[in-house]
Order: sequence, then structure tokens, then C-alpha cells
Amino acid sequence: MKFKIINPDWGMTEEQMEQRCRILADYTNRRIQLSMECLAKTKVSLDSLADLVRAGPEILQMAIQAEQEGYDAVILYCFSDPVMEACRQAVSIPVVGAGQAACLLLPAVAYHGALLVADQNRIPEKRMSLSRTGLASERICGYEPVHARGLDPIEHRGQLKKELLKAGQRALEHTEAQALILGCLSFLGLAEELSAGLMVPVIDPGPASVCLAETLVCMHLRSSPRAYPPYPHF
Amino acid sequence: MKFKIINPDWGMTEEQMEQRCRILADYTNRRIQLSMECLAKTKVSLDSLADLVRAGPEILQMAIQAEQEGYDAVILYCFSDPVMEACRQAVSIPVVGAGQAACLLLPAVAYHGALLVADQNRIPEKRMSLSRTGLASERICGYEPVHARGLDPIEHRGQLKKELLKAGQRALEHTEAQALILGCLSFLGLAEELSAGLMVPVIDPGPASVCLAETLVCMHLRSSPRAYPPYPHF
Repeated sequence: MKFKIINPDWGMTEEQMEQRCRILADYTNRRIQLSMECLAKTKVSLDSLADLVRAGPEILQMAIQAEQEGYDAVILYCFSDPVMEACRQAVSIPVVGAGQAACLLLPAVAYHGALLVADQNRIPEKRMSLSRTGLASERICGYEPVHARGLDPIEHRGQLKKELLKAGQRALEHTEAQALILGCLSFLGLAEELSAGLMVPVIDPGPASVCLAETLVCMHLRSSPRAYPPYPHF
Repeated sequence: MKFKIINPDWGMTEEQMEQRCRILADYTNRRIQLSMECLAKTKVSLDSLADLVRAGPEILQMAIQAEQEGYDAVILYCFSDPVMEACRQAVSIPVVGAGQAACLLLPAVAYHGALLVADQNRIPEKRMSLSRTGLASERICGYEPVHARGLDPIEHRGQLKKELLKAGQRALEHTEAQALILGCLSFLGLAEELSAGLMVPVIDPGPASVCLAETLVCMHLRSSPRAYPPYPHF
């Protein structure tokens, strides 16, 4: 079983992507081969709706190529699940959005959860986009910004963890959250330590996305052609 | 990794339970050991809310015993997710409801789905109980009864499949469903053939529950003690 992880941030090095795959592999079945690829032509990191629109065509093309190369599933490695539905039209293998995968795990461990987000200014946009995940909206009871701009999850691990702990603490104090969801893929690999510190489940969207892809492949589930009708020109 | 599957129907034979475990094992990781156990004292099959109340104490006790015996997760093998939240209070290992597990997979493959149910009279009750799953309610667009009372999924496989195909066809004709969810654990093992016949994804709650349990264990996620506070007398 091999999964293509599409990272919609331009300019990541091979080594950075391999590091992320190694962390993800710890949370999943050893039979699965993970391969990450980032934007090569569209020079954006996904930090706004405009970035998302600009990156869309390249992401779609990467998904189509992954299917042609024999991958069993495509994972969109961004909490905004960029162009997820369009990818489901374009390919017949499962397409998993990391944000959706994380949100759909919440009710398995708690009633209510809060989202820790990388950018305070984008909270209203996040709230809107959550309706796309299929999670009942009342299950998300708060959004807490993490002051972590520019912090790399591997290089600045200690500082990032400190900021996430503070944000998690604030969410647990000020909302009815019983669990936390890491609302950005840059927070990779810190959920377990945060959970031990904060005494609530912390859902990491990276591992959640790989596990959901494995579930779909094991159960032979593919996107519904009634929901995502294939376009003839793909 | 070993999972205890609690089957809340009284009087199943060892052989019947092993057959079900063999079917489930085909959909999951070979490392996982599945062990099914049914009600031994409470002589009911879960066919009403009263049955559910009567079976509750024994199910809870079985979950507690599974934890004591070193199981890594408990699976409630009934679409009603009987006493799921109480079990999450009683044990610290993950507790997965098969109904919840199936519903939370729907948005990964379609926008809308219809539920194929074993008993027409219990549709209003099913509708109410779906809010407990955490799936946004608008994602379920229909309920279709299957005329299958008394049909065993293994002994009467052919007839059961025929009835499920008819019910699925009706759901796809009369609702906006783009995928189907098998709303009873007695429909085990038929999803793939139904999907091939009906050309939409068909979600089988049995495999869905085992895969979700595996995800929770791999991600080291446990029920939130803030959501399900442990009682001191357990």
C-alpha cells in the first residue's frame, strides 16, 4: 500500500519531507509506504484563500499524477483540505483531507473539542470551512491561536511545544473543550506530549489522515461517483 | 494489539462469533487479534430501547472485564452504540461504537448518505440516535428498511444480499444518497458486493469499527476524562 502526501507549501527540501514521513510512519502500519511531494511551480505557502486558489491547479495535477503512478490514496497535507472535492472528481483512488480526517476523529474520544490554529486572523474562515468536514458544528466549541509563526516543527520543536501548551491551556480554561485538535499540519508530532501535559486527547491531523487513508483502502471504499462525478477531460 | 468485540445479542454460538471475526479480520491489519463475546446473562437481542436498557449493565461489565484482561480497545457490535458513553467512563482504553464508526466515515467518500435499517418501526429512534455520533445531521438524507427479519448474514447470505440490493436501489432512487451505510451489524460482509451492484460506496459498520479502534490505538488516543469522567466505584 503506498500513499502520496501532497504538501501544498512550495519549496520544502527532500530532507524536510522525509523527516515528516518518518514521524508519520511511527503512527501507522509498517506495510504502508509514504511519499511526500510539495508544490514545485506555484510559489506559495497556504496562508490565505488567495494562496489556495493559486495552488489549486497544481494540487489537482499532482493528485492525477499520483493515481497514474499507482498510488493507493492521496493525502492533502493541509488543515484547509485544499481542493479536496475537486481531487475526488479527478481521481478514483481515495482522497483524504487532513483537516477532515482530524475532525472526524473527535467524536470517538470526546463530545466537544477546540481547534488550535496557526493564524488568529483566519479563525472566521476556519469556522466556515469546518462545515465541509461533515462534523456536527456544535462539536467544535472554540478556536485558540498559537503564536508560532515561522516555527518549524522539527527545528524549533521545544519552542513550538511551549506555545502549543499555552494555547491548549487557554482553550481548556475558556471553553468547554474536552479534547484538542491541532489545526495546522506544522504542529506535527507533538500531540502525545501535549496530551500528557494537558490531560486531554490531542488529535494530530497528519497521523489522522494516514490512518483514514489506510481505513478507506482496507475497506475498499472509494469516493462516490454520485457525489463527485468524474469530468471527461481528466 | 487485541480488541474485545462485545456483541449485545444473547445466545450466539462460539462458531458464529468466530465466523464474524474471520470476516472482520479480512478488512484489517493481520497483527490485530479479534475476540467476540456475546451477552451471557441478559437474554435479549437488541431490538428495542427496553432491550438496550436491560442489556446495559452486562455490556458495561464486559467492557470493564476486557480492560482488566489487557485488551487494547472495546468495540460495541451494534449500530445503536449501546451504553457507549458509560463504557467510556468505566474504562480507560478506547471504546468504539460500530454505528458511530460507520457514520464518521461517510464524509470521507460522499456528501450525503442513506441508512439501510433492519426495522422500519425504529427509524424515528435511529434518527434521534444519530445526533450522538457527531456526524452533521444533514449528511443523512434517508432511511430505507430492509426486509430481512430472521436472516442470518452467513446462513442466508444470498437472500439477505438480494433484500439489501433492493433496499439500496430504493434509497438511491428516492433520496439524494450518494453512498449507503449498513445500519445493522447483521449485514456484515456484504458491502463490497452491494457497492459493485449499486455503483456507490457502501459502508459496513463492522470493519469500520475495527479500523477506527486500530486508528485510536495507533495514535495513542483515549477517551477524554473531561468528557467521560471516571466514576470512583468502577
